[in-house]
Amino acid sequence: MIRVTVWNEFFHERTEENVKKVYPNGIHNAIKDFLGTNEDIVVKTATLCDENCGITDELLAETDVMIWWGHVKHGDVPDEIAIKVKEAVLGGMGIIFLHSAHHSKVFKLLMGTTCNLGWRESNDKERLWILDHNHPIMQGIEGRYFELEAEETYSEPFGIPDPDKLLMIGWYNGGEVFRSGCVWHRENGKVFYFQPGHETFPTFYNENVQKIITNAVRWAAPVCPKIKLECPWVARIEEK
Amino acid sequence: MIRVTVWNEFFHERTEENVKKVYPNGIHNAIKDFLGTNEDIVVKTATLCDENCGITDELLAETDVMIWWGHVKHGDVPDEIAIKVKEAVLGGMGIIFLHSAHHSKVFKLLMGTTCNLGWRESNDKERLWILDHNHPIMQGIEGRYFELEAEETYSEPFGIPDPDKLLMIGWYNGGEVFRSGCVWHRENGKVFYFQPGHETFPTFYNENVQKIITNAVRWAAPVCPKIKLECPWVARIEEK
Amino acid sequence: MIRVTVWNEFFHERTEENVKKVYPNGIHNAIKDFLGTNEDIVVKTATLCDENCGITDELLAETDVMIWWGHVKHGDVPDEIAIKVKEAVLGGMGIIFLHSAHHSKVFKLLMGTTCNLGWRESNDKERLWILDHNHPIMQGIEGRYFELEAEETYSEPFGIPDPDKLLMIGWYNGGEVFRSGCVWHRENGKVFYFQPGHETFPTFYNENVQKIITNAVRWAAPVCPKIKLECPWVARIEEK
Amino acid sequence: MIRVTVWNEFFHERTEENVKKVYPNGIHNAIKDFLGTNEDIVVKTATLCDENCGITDELLAETDVMIWWGHVKHGDVPDEIAIKVKEAVLGGMGIIFLHSAHHSKVFKLLMGTTCNLGWRESNDKERLWILDHNHPIMQGIEGRYFELEAEETYSEPFGIPDPDKLLMIGWYNGGEVFRSGCVWHRENGKVFYFQPGHETFPTFYNENVQKIITNAVRWAAPVCPKIKLECPWVARIEEK
Repeated sequence: MIRVTVWNEFFHERTEENVKKVYPNGIHNAIKDFLGTNEDIVVKTATLCDENCGITDELLAETDVMIWWGHVKHGDVPDEIAIKVKEAVLGGMGIIFLHSAHHSKVFKLLMGTTCNLGWRESNDKERLWILDHNHPIMQGIEGRYFELEAEETYSEPFGIPDPDKLLMIGWYNGGEVFRSGCVWHRENGKVFYFQPGHETFPTFYNENVQKIITNAVRWAAPVCPKIKLECPWVARIEEK
Repeated sequence: MIRVTVWNEFFHERTEENVKKVYPNGIHNAIKDFLGTNEDIVVKTATLCDENCGITDELLAETDVMIWWGHVKHGDVPDEIAIKVKEAVLGGMGIIFLHSAHHSKVFKLLMGTTCNLGWRESNDKERLWILDHNHPIMQGIEGRYFELEAEETYSEPFGIPDPDKLLMIGWYNGGEVFRSGCVWHRENGKVFYFQPGHETFPTFYNENVQKIITNAVRWAAPVCPKIKLECPWVARIEEK
Repeated sequence: MIRVTVWNEFFHERTEENVKKVYPNGIHNAIKDFLGTNEDIVVKTATLCDENCGITDELLAETDVMIWWGHVKHGDVPDEIAIKVKEAVLGGMGIIFLHSAHHSKVFKLLMGTTCNLGWRESNDKERLWILDHNHPIMQGIEGRYFELEAEETYSEPFGIPDPDKLLMIGWYNGGEVFRSGCVWHRENGKVFYFQPGHETFPTFYNENVQKIITNAVRWAAPVCPKIKLECPWVARIEEK
Repeated sequence: MIRVTVWNEFFHERTEENVKKVYPNGIHNAIKDFLGTNEDIVVKTATLCDENCGITDELLAETDVMIWWGHVKHGDVPDEIAIKVKEAVLGGMGIIFLHSAHHSKVFKLLMGTTCNLGWRESNDKERLWILDHNHPIMQGIEGRYFELEAEETYSEPFGIPDPDKLLMIGWYNGGEVFRSGCVWHRENGKVFYFQPGHETFPTFYNENVQKIITNAVRWAAPVCPKIKLECPWVARIEEK
């Protein structure tokens, strides 16, 4: 059983009518809804509205994979919380960053770079080209590409370390390209960045997007019990 | 169910007493024996003694992962057979190259380089250091390293493309190091090279070696039905 | 002084009026013309019209970087010649593959994959996005992207090993993306693939294209005398 | 002209007799001495003894490549200074981390991981195996490996992101291996980690070590004027 925690800043959905219409219970619950239909996955949620962002040591210890969505409230996540999450990842917890989470504190801490990108608020059509159909995260996605009728436009250069594996490149009819699906290993933790998911569009109801996030959860889950990951070889090293 | 074919040149075990003692039924059957104990894996074998090396289009179509051991008879594998196997890999079949298979035609075709290395016939102690405990191929291997009491010594520089992921580095008491566990993606196929396995040593009875090969089989198996891999997006491209 | 050999199949320019108009002396001479203006570069050319493709052991020994353009006559390059060039690369000669050279024998031998791609004959506008402005090959290219008014459209998936470094992604107004600037290391040799350069367009007169090819020549040139590369450490290894 | 700043915590050399004997003017001056003999390199130094660690915005603006040595006083470098240096790297300044600088704040910020490793104070013999003789950093290093009579032992697993290019693997007679020469790109900045250089050993007088550091300086220097790097394309992006 893979234990997932979906974290959402949950701001636009409470304050903007057009977003509320698309995600009436928040993006976190939209994600919980489709993930929860899988027999091997159990889902909790936490948001910026919860005390301490809803993130405790206990929650992290019981989370195999965290999913993160944030946008305009990155600065409201306390540094200590961001560092705690980063350390959980280094110890083996998988993590999936969605869309504007590219500027979340946790992502920037893990990448070590600005994670800047170019962008336009738009309703460009996006076409996501798939580079490797046999990667576990792309399992079941057919065709050379799939499309989203409308997404916010992101563009290169994206200020990230080169991904360990580039899975998708996004094409926008406005003239931009973006590395839309990126995989990194950070010590014991697996990291996936997935670009779609602007709050005003129904992206998280798209079948391919749901498949990819579900696949990514299974891929990012640690392959050893987390207690083991934190323990044997680390303990035996005299650490400097 | 993962369908594995273990290919072995099966020469030393028939012609040299000291090897016959270690692997009386051949290295292929030693591998088949431990792989076959897994409920999700079925194993066939093929050798250089079989007509056409025992490799037919039908066999390749029904193989999810091939395992390859060869040493002094690489040249006896006809080019057409080697090319056939390479193409099956590009179409999605996983492949695991063991020890001296670094100089097999199939490996060299897939790598595009000489695959040369330094070597000494020896009975050096080897210590295999693990770089990523959370990779599926390393699942269940505990400690920072594991040891083999005796192995043939391989050394850098190893004339390969940089692996997509380096999993293990071998240390030899004689003074050498070697990239002993290497992962590549080649189009739709996953490739793993694993250095241990000289014919005169009981390496394939080692518990860690068996675990790693078993893990690698599960990792290398295609995540879509192979017929799909060869088909949808390839068909839709006007290929140049 | 960097010694460059530009190889061209030199077929379209002799047989098709519209191509002849763009490159009256052949693509090889168009490249020679701009490379030759650099004081640190000397350029020879060779074509399919020459005996043995104009490629001799002596020429390879005296070439630091080879540039390769081919399209419909890949099959006319004898296997022995292609293998000779591949081996020169593994020994330290740099090589730059342009446009449809993705299907040349030498490129496919070095990559180990089909190197297939999607394509449309078109006169799409292409916009080349730059991922790393501080790579030697991108030196002096300003802006986040540069454009070509018309190019043949290439699209993903491109059947190559993941590049060691991805430098550019091409966007086409028809809806495609392509990994347009890719770097690999193959043993002692440096390899650069650069997508623009269809025979019917004046791509090789574009200032940015010329800068990139010139930069790539300097980047790909071996950093030790080639005789050294072929020699000291290779000689000292007992090769298997 | 490449402008280098060598930063050293300069503690052991002032407080311990055995270190003072080896580096009477500090490790920074030992490095300055050999770098300064090159006509294309000018060297400044800065240490923890200087006000604000000797690091100002002006110094960073005038530094093309920084070299960093630290060990027991990492915590005394103020966070603001470490962040300033990190940002200079992301903007294009090259940086070389030596030996125990693996635990410096700047390195850990750039890597995003713990950068933990195993270690033994020892005087093990180290043998550094070279994986790519044609990389600019390895220029002029002959043979398959070179040796240091005595070094502190470092061992895997090294808690770093996989390097973009692994150049050297260290072998220690005590049984350890280590990724001793690692290259990363971090946005506009080039990063090199080089493991030798314990304060009690005369490592920085070793000819190969000096050559490698000198090569790395030339490799890490930005290929565009730094003012340009910070400017054109960054300015044109609407940054999120």
